[in-house]
Amino acid sequence: MSHLLEQAQAGDPRATARLVSLVENRSPRLREAMAVLVEHVGTSRTIGVTGSPGVGKSTLVTRLVGAYRDAGARVAVLAVDPSSPYTGGAVLGDRVRMQEHATDPGVFIRSMASRGHLGGLSWATPQALRVMDAAGFDVVVVETVGVGQSEVEVAGLADSTIVVLAPGLGDGIQAAKAGILEVSDVFVVNKADRAGANEVVRDLTAMLRAAPTVPAAESAGWTPPVVRTEAHQGKGIDELVAGLDDHADWLATSGRLLERRRRQAREEVVALAQTAFVDAAQQAMGTRALDSLADEVVAGRLDPYTAADLLIEAAAAS
Amino acid sequence: MSHLLEQAQAGDPRATARLVSLVENRSPRLREAMAVLVEHVGTSRTIGVTGSPGVGKSTLVTRLVGAYRDAGARVAVLAVDPSSPYTGGAVLGDRVRMQEHATDPGVFIRSMASRGHLGGLSWATPQALRVMDAAGFDVVVVETVGVGQSEVEVAGLADSTIVVLAPGLGDGIQAAKAGILEVSDVFVVNKADRAGANEVVRDLTAMLRAAPTVPAAESAGWTPPVVRTEAHQGKGIDELVAGLDDHADWLATSGRLLERRRRQAREEVVALAQTAFVDAAQQAMGTRALDSLADEVVAGRLDPYTAADLLIEAAAAS
Repeated sequence: MSHLLEQAQAGDPRATARLVSLVENRSPRLREAMAVLVEHVGTSRTIGVTGSPGVGKSTLVTRLVGAYRDAGARVAVLAVDPSSPYTGGAVLGDRVRMQEHATDPGVFIRSMASRGHLGGLSWATPQALRVMDAAGFDVVVVETVGVGQSEVEVAGLADSTIVVLAPGLGDGIQAAKAGILEVSDVFVVNKADRAGANEVVRDLTAMLRAAPTVPAAESAGWTPPVVRTEAHQGKGIDELVAGLDDHADWLATSGRLLERRRRQAREEVVALAQTAFVDAAQQAMGTRALDSLADEVVAGRLDPYTAADLLIEAAAAS
Repeated sequence: MSHLLEQAQAGDPRATARLVSLVENRSPRLREAMAVLVEHVGTSRTIGVTGSPGVGKSTLVTRLVGAYRDAGARVAVLAVDPSSPYTGGAVLGDRVRMQEHATDPGVFIRSMASRGHLGGLSWATPQALRVMDAAGFDVVVVETVGVGQSEVEVAGLADSTIVVLAPGLGDGIQAAKAGILEVSDVFVVNKADRAGANEVVRDLTAMLRAAPTVPAAESAGWTPPVVRTEAHQGKGIDELVAGLDDHADWLATSGRLLERRRRQAREEVVALAQTAFVDAAQQAMGTRALDSLADEVVAGRLDPYTAADLLIEAAAAS
């Protein structure tokens, strides 16, 4: 495992991919890997990118990767795709657009399915980020599609989170609805040359001023900049990088970076404990007994709390 | 509690609202309520509605409610909003559009925040559905915004799930990405009078034919109809109701309804056990000790698995 990590640190993409696969497959060797990796973390900077379908996230990420590469950084991109609860398959469509970086050994790109498992995002994504961190990437970009709850949670795993909007998608209103105002450290209004861009910037700025709960306690003292970009033309990327740098400086000087990482680690540890408990409980009870329990609930002969107690008792007795 | 349920069954919206609030607030009395409610469930039919922002879900739901009201059914609408992980507040914006039903005593409308808690959707939504069921609603519509993972999971809690698409939002591709093809029992292409509607129908039909993993095992034998609607004009609603009736018939005759409800109950019981375990573990360890544990992980002195073990041990010792 140490050897694999050394190869990853030396820039071997296959070694990094193998380490990420341990996470994605919930490998029995994952635990061993984490024990080795944990001593090498703390040097990379993570940037979350989220937003509705169609706003141009992938193009923006491609440009952002280019900018950090130009500055000499090793960059990893982790694309967390909302995936089927049944097949768990990630769709790689958007990744194709990033092919300009595909042959650059300083860039590692990986799609990861978010799966339908309870707590799936919560435990797998931070571990994948730990792999990238230990493998020595200077910048790790986590891209999520959509603005659902899970995506917001993933964005919360980054040091700095970019929420991307675009004109013509009713995003101003959607931003408020999804609570993304509060997870966003930097706003990007992409496709800024299109009709309606000014209105999006205006609505966003007004909302940022008006919302009493924004910024959230965790970000109190930071006002998210609103950056206009035309990612296809590479316009506005320098301004975005500057906004991210400002945020990184603020995180470091305000002490918020440690606070944020503590919360992330706490959530990860709780999610791991939760997953371990449920696995043990289900194994102790057995599939058939659990199905019978569910049938009793469906039939109205047992309430779900009492059923949950029986499951907990089975785990405790094992 | 029995009295409150009787009032709800008699059509008192405040009684129903109080029961839902027990769920939303994680009231200590919730357990008592569920023990009473569980004996009254099994008569309502749940319909999930999901889709990207801007496709016209709320208008469609309003029309659907109207159609079921015309047929004499008592109808409840539960709108699960993706909400801030920090404030947990649901935004009621869309609900305003449903005001034509606001004064109808046969219609109960409630927004519920999906919250940022782990397993929040998984345990709260089924319990809110149980409240509606026990309160005697014939049809319960669960509406979720977005096509994120959590929203897909919520849709999976319904007997029949409608995925709503519209032209001009790149939804054909998004449908495949979010895995919603597999949770959808009925597709609606809304705004069917707009340019591009034919293409959405065509792409969708092609995808349904081509996808080898669709329909998923749980729905094997059912081909989702693709219904065109213009919800604003009320067009296509009869066809949608017919499609839903066909699906309900298929669920009943194929035995899939019981299978689906068994899975839902199993997931709910597991989520409740999980939540109870984590609450107990966090209480046993204490906030300060858990923060210290997280700090060790951040500093690279402890791997997250060992930290999770310590949390589990604390819970077991309590």
